[in-house]
Amino acid sequence: MVKLNKIVIAGVGLIGGSFALALKQAGAVREVVGIGRTRATLERAKQLGVIDAIADDWAGAMQGADLVLLAMPVGAMEAALQALLPHLEAHTVVTDGGSTKRDILQAAERILGARVAQFVPGHPIAGSEKGGAAAAQADLYRDRRVVLTPGSATGTDGLALVRTAWEACGAKVDILSTAAHDRVFAAVSHLPHLLAYALVHEFAARDNAGELFGFAAGGFRDFTRIASSHPEMWRDICIVNRAPLIAELDAYMAALLRLRTLLAAADANGLEAVFAAARQARDEWLHGMSENAEE
Amino acid sequence: MVKLNKIVIAGVGLIGGSFALALKQAGAVREVVGIGRTRATLERAKQLGVIDAIADDWAGAMQGADLVLLAMPVGAMEAALQALLPHLEAHTVVTDGGSTKRDILQAAERILGARVAQFVPGHPIAGSEKGGAAAAQADLYRDRRVVLTPGSATGTDGLALVRTAWEACGAKVDILSTAAHDRVFAAVSHLPHLLAYALVHEFAARDNAGELFGFAAGGFRDFTRIASSHPEMWRDICIVNRAPLIAELDAYMAALLRLRTLLAAADANGLEAVFAAARQARDEWLHGMSENAEE
Repeated sequence: MVKLNKIVIAGVGLIGGSFALALKQAGAVREVVGIGRTRATLERAKQLGVIDAIADDWAGAMQGADLVLLAMPVGAMEAALQALLPHLEAHTVVTDGGSTKRDILQAAERILGARVAQFVPGHPIAGSEKGGAAAAQADLYRDRRVVLTPGSATGTDGLALVRTAWEACGAKVDILSTAAHDRVFAAVSHLPHLLAYALVHEFAARDNAGELFGFAAGGFRDFTRIASSHPEMWRDICIVNRAPLIAELDAYMAALLRLRTLLAAADANGLEAVFAAARQARDEWLHGMSENAEE
Repeated sequence: MVKLNKIVIAGVGLIGGSFALALKQAGAVREVVGIGRTRATLERAKQLGVIDAIADDWAGAMQGADLVLLAMPVGAMEAALQALLPHLEAHTVVTDGGSTKRDILQAAERILGARVAQFVPGHPIAGSEKGGAAAAQADLYRDRRVVLTPGSATGTDGLALVRTAWEACGAKVDILSTAAHDRVFAAVSHLPHLLAYALVHEFAARDNAGELFGFAAGGFRDFTRIASSHPEMWRDICIVNRAPLIAELDAYMAALLRLRTLLAAADANGLEAVFAAARQARDEWLHGMSENAEE
C-alpha cells in the first residue's frame, strides 16, 4: 500500500476532490493541501473534508509534497507548471488529470526542462457535467480506467508512484502514447461533447426554440446531457486537441452525408442496416461494460 | 370519467401496453383486446395482464370496439388501416401512437375515405430504447405530453374521446397540425436518433473499434442511448419523415461546419460562446421540465 505524507490538489473540483477523498478513504495519504484560484471554493472544500489545508501560494503548497495533482482546466496547466517549478523539490512527483495529453506533456518538457522526469501525464476517465468540490466522491474512480501517457523522459519511480496512487483509488491504469490517447479521446469524448453543444445551440438560436424545447423528451435529454458540461473546460480541451478533433468531425460529417444520401433515396434497407449495426455494437459494448462493473 | 367497454391494442409493445395498463388502472376500460403479428408476444402480454384477450383476426378484434390504438411501427400502419376497414363499426374511433403524423393522416384519408372522420392521429411523447410489452407500465404517460393532429375531416366526438382517454392516462394533450408536428419532431427526436446511430456505426466500422469502445465512458453512453432503439421502428420514422429530417440534418451540418471553422482558427472565445449558450439553454430547459414534473 502506498502511503503519501502530503499531496497537493491544484484545482479542487470533481476530479481533484474525488482523488483526495479516495486516497483518504484508502488510508493512503496523511495530509491533503488544496490550492486554487478561488478562495471560497477552497474554503468550501475544506469544510467538506475534501482537503485538510489551504495553501496561500505555491511555495507553501510544494513544501514537502510527495505528489501534486494538477486538476484545473487544461488551458491553465501551463501557468501552473511555471508557478510550481521554482518550488519543486527533488522527490516530488507531479501528475495531472487533463483530458488532453500531448499538449500538456509538451508544455511540461518546455517548462520543466530536465525535471520533466518528475512529471507523469495522466487522464482519469471519469467525470460528470456536475463539477465542483461538492460533487466529489471517494468512489468516483472505482473500476474506472485511468490512462497514463509517460514520455521518454518520464521517471520510472514517478510513473510507479502515480500508478499506485490511482490503483489505491480503485482505478485500473492503462499506458498509452500521448498521440494515441488524444486520437482515441477526440473520438469517444471530445467529438460527442462538440456534437451535443452544437445541437442545443442550434435549437436555442431559432425563433421557435420554445416550441422545440417544449416537445423535447427523454431521448433529447440524455443525448444532450454533456452539453451541460463546463464551457471553459471544454473550450480548452477542444482547442488544444483540435487537430485530431477536426479529423473526427470530418469523418463524422462524411458519415452524416452518407445517411443523407440514404434518406434522400428513401433507402429503407440501407438505413436499417446502419441502425441495426449501431444498436448491436452499442449493446455489445454495454454488455462488456457491465461485465467489468463499469458504469 | 371516460368509460370504454372495449379497446383494441394493435401492436402490444411499450406504447400500446402502457396505454392499456394506464386505462385499466384508471378504471376507464372494461376489456382490452390485443392483436399483432407475433402470437408469442400477445401470449406474453396476456400473461402479464396487459391485455385481457387475444384477437385471432381483425373481424374479431373490431367487433364492438369503442377505441382502437394502432401502436405498431409507422411503416405498418397503412396495412393495418386496410385490414380493419371492412370491420369498422360506426361508433368505433381509431387512433395511433406513431412518431410521424402527416404520412399517417394521408394514408388514413386515402384508405378510409369518408370514414377518416373516425380516425384521430396521435403521438404520445414517451418511449424508451427498451421496447416490448414487458417494459409497459401504467404510469408511462403520467405528466407526459401527447400530441393529437386532427385533420379537417376528423370528427369532434372522436377527437374528444381520444383526448379524454389520454388524459385518463395522466397525459397532457396538445393539438398541432401534422406539418408542425413533423417539423418539431424531426428536430427534437428524429435527428438526435439519426446522429446517435451515425456515431456508433462510424466507430464500430473502424479497425480500432475495440480500443475506442474500451475507453468510452458515461458521456458516450448517454449520448448514444437512443442508438439502442429499435432499428425497424426508426427506419420507418426516418423514411416517412425524411423531408423535414433532411432539412434538419442540413441545418445541423451547417452548424458543425461553423464549429469546424472556429476550431481550425483556434477561436477559443467563439467556441466558448457556443458552449456557454448551449449549456444555459439546456439548463433552463431542464429547470422548466422539473417544474412541470416531467422527466
